[in-house]
Amino acid sequence: MSISGRHFLQIPGPTNVPDRILRAMDRPVVDHRGPEFAELTKEILPLLKEVFGTHEGTVVIYPSSGTGAWEAALVNVLSPGERILAFNYGHFSELFARTARNLGYDVEEVPLRWGQELPAEEVEAHLRADDGENPYAAVLVVHNETSTGVTSDVGAIRDAIDAAGHDALLIVDTVSSLASIEVKHDEWRADVTLTGSQKGLMLPPGLALLCVSPRALERGTEGGAPRNFFDWRPIIRDNEAGFFPYTPATLLLFGLREALKMLVEEEGLSNVYARHRSLAEGVRAAVEAWGLRNLCEKPEFYSNTLTAVVVPEGADSDEVIRVARERFGLALGVGLSRIKGRVFRIGHLGALNELEVLGTLGGVEMALIESGVPVELGSGVRAAQQLFTRKPTEVAGDQDRAAV
Amino acid sequence: MSISGRHFLQIPGPTNVPDRILRAMDRPVVDHRGPEFAELTKEILPLLKEVFGTHEGTVVIYPSSGTGAWEAALVNVLSPGERILAFNYGHFSELFARTARNLGYDVEEVPLRWGQELPAEEVEAHLRADDGENPYAAVLVVHNETSTGVTSDVGAIRDAIDAAGHDALLIVDTVSSLASIEVKHDEWRADVTLTGSQKGLMLPPGLALLCVSPRALERGTEGGAPRNFFDWRPIIRDNEAGFFPYTPATLLLFGLREALKMLVEEEGLSNVYARHRSLAEGVRAAVEAWGLRNLCEKPEFYSNTLTAVVVPEGADSDEVIRVARERFGLALGVGLSRIKGRVFRIGHLGALNELEVLGTLGGVEMALIESGVPVELGSGVRAAQQLFTRKPTEVAGDQDRAAV
Amino acid sequence: MSISGRHFLQIPGPTNVPDRILRAMDRPVVDHRGPEFAELTKEILPLLKEVFGTHEGTVVIYPSSGTGAWEAALVNVLSPGERILAFNYGHFSELFARTARNLGYDVEEVPLRWGQELPAEEVEAHLRADDGENPYAAVLVVHNETSTGVTSDVGAIRDAIDAAGHDALLIVDTVSSLASIEVKHDEWRADVTLTGSQKGLMLPPGLALLCVSPRALERGTEGGAPRNFFDWRPIIRDNEAGFFPYTPATLLLFGLREALKMLVEEEGLSNVYARHRSLAEGVRAAVEAWGLRNLCEKPEFYSNTLTAVVVPEGADSDEVIRVARERFGLALGVGLSRIKGRVFRIGHLGALNELEVLGTLGGVEMALIESGVPVELGSGVRAAQQLFTRKPTEVAGDQDRAAV
Amino acid sequence: MSISGRHFLQIPGPTNVPDRILRAMDRPVVDHRGPEFAELTKEILPLLKEVFGTHEGTVVIYPSSGTGAWEAALVNVLSPGERILAFNYGHFSELFARTARNLGYDVEEVPLRWGQELPAEEVEAHLRADDGENPYAAVLVVHNETSTGVTSDVGAIRDAIDAAGHDALLIVDTVSSLASIEVKHDEWRADVTLTGSQKGLMLPPGLALLCVSPRALERGTEGGAPRNFFDWRPIIRDNEAGFFPYTPATLLLFGLREALKMLVEEEGLSNVYARHRSLAEGVRAAVEAWGLRNLCEKPEFYSNTLTAVVVPEGADSDEVIRVARERFGLALGVGLSRIKGRVFRIGHLGALNELEVLGTLGGVEMALIESGVPVELGSGVRAAQQLFTRKPTEVAGDQDRAAV
Repeated sequence: MSISGRHFLQIPGPTNVPDRILRAMDRPVVDHRGPEFAELTKEILPLLKEVFGTHEGTVVIYPSSGTGAWEAALVNVLSPGERILAFNYGHFSELFARTARNLGYDVEEVPLRWGQELPAEEVEAHLRADDGENPYAAVLVVHNETSTGVTSDVGAIRDAIDAAGHDALLIVDTVSSLASIEVKHDEWRADVTLTGSQKGLMLPPGLALLCVSPRALERGTEGGAPRNFFDWRPIIRDNEAGFFPYTPATLLLFGLREALKMLVEEEGLSNVYARHRSLAEGVRAAVEAWGLRNLCEKPEFYSNTLTAVVVPEGADSDEVIRVARERFGLALGVGLSRIKGRVFRIGHLGALNELEVLGTLGGVEMALIESGVPVELGSGVRAAQQLFTRKPTEVAGDQDRAAV
Repeated sequence: MSISGRHFLQIPGPTNVPDRILRAMDRPVVDHRGPEFAELTKEILPLLKEVFGTHEGTVVIYPSSGTGAWEAALVNVLSPGERILAFNYGHFSELFARTARNLGYDVEEVPLRWGQELPAEEVEAHLRADDGENPYAAVLVVHNETSTGVTSDVGAIRDAIDAAGHDALLIVDTVSSLASIEVKHDEWRADVTLTGSQKGLMLPPGLALLCVSPRALERGTEGGAPRNFFDWRPIIRDNEAGFFPYTPATLLLFGLREALKMLVEEEGLSNVYARHRSLAEGVRAAVEAWGLRNLCEKPEFYSNTLTAVVVPEGADSDEVIRVARERFGLALGVGLSRIKGRVFRIGHLGALNELEVLGTLGGVEMALIESGVPVELGSGVRAAQQLFTRKPTEVAGDQDRAAV
Repeated sequence: MSISGRHFLQIPGPTNVPDRILRAMDRPVVDHRGPEFAELTKEILPLLKEVFGTHEGTVVIYPSSGTGAWEAALVNVLSPGERILAFNYGHFSELFARTARNLGYDVEEVPLRWGQELPAEEVEAHLRADDGENPYAAVLVVHNETSTGVTSDVGAIRDAIDAAGHDALLIVDTVSSLASIEVKHDEWRADVTLTGSQKGLMLPPGLALLCVSPRALERGTEGGAPRNFFDWRPIIRDNEAGFFPYTPATLLLFGLREALKMLVEEEGLSNVYARHRSLAEGVRAAVEAWGLRNLCEKPEFYSNTLTAVVVPEGADSDEVIRVARERFGLALGVGLSRIKGRVFRIGHLGALNELEVLGTLGGVEMALIESGVPVELGSGVRAAQQLFTRKPTEVAGDQDRAAV
Repeated sequence: MSISGRHFLQIPGPTNVPDRILRAMDRPVVDHRGPEFAELTKEILPLLKEVFGTHEGTVVIYPSSGTGAWEAALVNVLSPGERILAFNYGHFSELFARTARNLGYDVEEVPLRWGQELPAEEVEAHLRADDGENPYAAVLVVHNETSTGVTSDVGAIRDAIDAAGHDALLIVDTVSSLASIEVKHDEWRADVTLTGSQKGLMLPPGLALLCVSPRALERGTEGGAPRNFFDWRPIIRDNEAGFFPYTPATLLLFGLREALKMLVEEEGLSNVYARHRSLAEGVRAAVEAWGLRNLCEKPEFYSNTLTAVVVPEGADSDEVIRVARERFGLALGVGLSRIKGRVFRIGHLGALNELEVLGTLGGVEMALIESGVPVELGSGVRAAQQLFTRKPTEVAGDQDRAAV
């Protein structure tokens, strides 16, 4: 039997698309070579730069997925056979490394624990150990590991690269952080920062977005791999006049403009980041109240966009997820790959507010109980409410302290 | 600052319009004299009869509001000057009586307490006392008082009319019950049962709907007041072929078809009623856990579509409502007229599920705390969860016992 | 077999709802007692006044149909039994008079030819002949007869009333003219000007709109018929704060705001009127090129919103309409009542441009040929094109001459 | 000043997205790892196979553009350095060859005239001349050249390959033909047939679609270029259960299901092809009536999805296009690259009917006149009407004869 009312889509992306954005896309296709379209492009790109935290960078949009963003970030700046330093601390950092291998790069993949952040000292150590024969051409970093709920400190990683005196490119995956957790492309001196449309940007899937540093642009001018679809040169060239070298995903771009209005012009990015921090703290307080463990090992790396919750020994997280979906219309994220059955993930990114979080937490509690995991009904909800009813000033103070 | 994510519209109507219904209405207007339109009408009317609980009755649809439904129910069967028996047990029963007076009827309006149901014995007593000079031509009953959260027992009222041996018409307002609480037009031998589109039918406002008994139809053929827009005769005549005597609200009718598919064909009406009972029990358990009072005096008349909660002496329910809206994006119903400031109303009708109720209850708790009304955070949510996690079989058993 | 592509809905209303307006309505219902809603009301009313051509008048909106607008215009200002002067020069003027009779008024209905305008001298003569015993309390005028395609000169009728020295109220139906042909409520000193949402305002059906003079307002304060739903007093009172005394048709009001933005703020009303004149001239040139007759007798009263085309003796206009619909996806208006089978009507009002008119004319030509009415293919299209390719300056000159 | 009413988007893609399809996409995102999504995939793939004309082939969908489809078709089956035979007979065949070069293939690009079809004998001659040292691994064919309006005969090209006794892969671009002109993947023994979503499939841009033969699948298993995003192996593997290896473009897939229902289940593919032939004949008759030249040299290769019209010496097609857009809201396709300014293109593919074609032709006539190109107003419209009013039986007879 189908469930009445609104379903709670609380996977860590795709996220809920606000009605306003759906409406912005529910429109006739326009001629992508006409003046209306050119204006659209010119409105979007500067707003996106704010979201990436860049003045110097160049933003590139592809009609593609986040997987495509990985590929775009590599083939434009790295020649086949070049060496890449990657770290495996979750499903997506593993897949990013695999993508690079599939594309013909020589990938050094350092294993870490899933639940661990990417430690800056590990990066430094590996770069220092580089004997320079086929030196590392790039370091791959996943800012926010969507499989484990860990946000690594990219600023510290940049410092580590500098400390090692290495000039490897810094390529940062911000798929599940951008527009929800602050991204600082310029401050990090990232070379390529990449994301997809279906997470913090509150859009349906279908766009890959990159922010490219001048250094990376230069690499792309002469070097890189043989490429066509992901070649950013013709896109950047045609974007100057507001156009694309091929038919762009017009409706998603209309949606993107609306999303950027909401995030940058109306709510304001610092408020967006503060809201995600506050909602995440509520979820984490609930997990603690339930007596369950956050897969992320250290509190300072807790992700503000999703929380991976470890179920007790003997319990099956897939069963919790099934009950949540079938009985309560609540979609949670599964444990991926090697942590399948051991964790469920609560997404708390994109368009979201306190009451939706409370409904979600209430649903998780009921699904846990019905799956045989003993928690006290209402305990997590109450823990979150206690945070949500703090005075705004307290939250503001907290904001300064907690800023990553 | 606007609030991110989905707002919680939990007033007792208009209710949340499901996306499916919005989509069904987001379409080009069709020719209301063409064959596609005729099919639409012919699909809708039989499904509506099921919702009204009728085989014998005739359903009439007006492009109007619930207020218009009151007028339509009166002017077709009653001549100006005829006497009407009405009872004041809430804002809407009061307005229904005033409507009748405005239209030139001689209304006997019996005062009752707001929070009280309409007692069958009161009806019987007044009808027995009728001296027959200008006998009561009709009795007005509001099935579910939207201002107080009280569902009266229309079956018992019918029995009372019979017991008094009186032949007054029985006119029943089911504006906030139909399609959420079972309505039994035939079993009640109601003469006119009336409603609007924006409550249990999950549509935007804009339609008035009536179910008319053969006896009422006959009255309307020759009697009634001078009338035009609300005259049901030309509508019923043209509906035979699937048309309307004037331009109908085409888009709302497309929405109505979708709503009826969802309620009658997919979820099933008995499941719809059971769902509303279960959600209402959850809300009532929360109110009890908070230590607050339900305005409805007797548990057997608690409404399954809304709950009017009395705030403690010294508190201002308007303040609770303001905080809920401004801080949490939660819309609650105000105390109307003489109970302004003393109650807030939680709507739990239409498209709704457990998690939405938990989010709502969690929001009410926070709004109460922030308005200075002491309640234990999470207590109401937990009370509701305890009911929602009962086994379905228990719910089923309950269903038999609790059926009004 | 269904027809691919976009259907041509060219009946004289409901008209095509632009995508922008559909999107504006494709949204969650809001609380009609909240601040967002109040702002909406306050934005709409002043823009509507511009469309009615009034400074002094008060605009009232009902969730109802055009038929309801007739009733509202009568019951607020006239007491049952009062005498009304009406003229029968088409289906809708006949129905307006019948509505008044149904509501208990004493209607003098003067027969005229269908195809004729309402002659000012007829009005004057009847008012002069008024012996004052039960004097005419109101004169009913249909500005644009939707059944015949005739636009009467309301300014001249006002002069005739003045010339007769009579103080009857002037009630004007502008259902199929408002927002497409200029309406001058103040200049005409109309007492009530009425319309519906589904014509020039480009909305789905569901709203009745009135503009009320101070004199009519005063009448309504004490006089009028027993009334409730159509009583404008509580609406005007609550509108001051942006609210309605009952649940308004919220989504249509969102659509109305968008429509008014398009008409008043973007295109500009004088451009809207000029566009309709130009498109209508194109259609009329086509009718002449086909050798067919316009039902409207005198060119100076040709309607700019629709054209009723008389088919030759022996032909059946219903057959032309059937072929147009089934073969070409083109909806045309039927001949109503006594002219059934003798005319078809081409609607050219609302959201419409030259190319849509050419497609329509091309479709009419093919439907005529396939129904056995001999016309030269392309002849009407060419005649319209010749007008549409005139220099804008010529059109402007024309505009001054042709202004009604 | 913006233009009222519906714009005529008659570029050769993106095409008009029907309201039904927009509605199907105007919906909440679903969990792409949940059962609802799996059903969607399983509904879509078999219907797509019908559109590709295949039983044996495997359909693969990417969230990408048509450009991406080119890349996908190459990198899965060809290793860098392999030799490819391509022909330049228009802008898109030129770009397809350039794509292959960009990806590191050794491309032999045979120049032809723009306006010419791809002659089977040219293919045969080049394959026969292959000395086998680095033999042609693939032949690239653009079925319908969108820049010139020429549909080549892929069946004859297949015969030529066979006649030459060559085993090069046959890779066919059907971007602007599929779902409007019949595509016969199996009968042609094509190895990869590729398209995008924004043409005959009536969707917004954003999907690349491939049909892959068993032989090509096998090549892809072991060979091909280093690849990741466009690697079809994981997609085909996950599609078995209804899923994708990465986040798919969910909303476009909902739209695709609706489009396939309309094309395959409701209208029927043979009717779709017949409709496009009939509409195209109407457009071509108009071009002839205007005395203008079709860029396509031979009538037997005229495209049924677009017509490239050559403007007379001294005229500028960009000016015609500008006037059409600015004065009449009509979007036409420009002359691309080396034929810029010399042709304008009328798209007549996707959701389209006779009246839309007549409106378009009428608009082209007016734009020509206003740009100083002398044509007789109405002449093209009449020529099309004469074809559109032929008896259906004549059309049916024609259908058999004209089938490519």
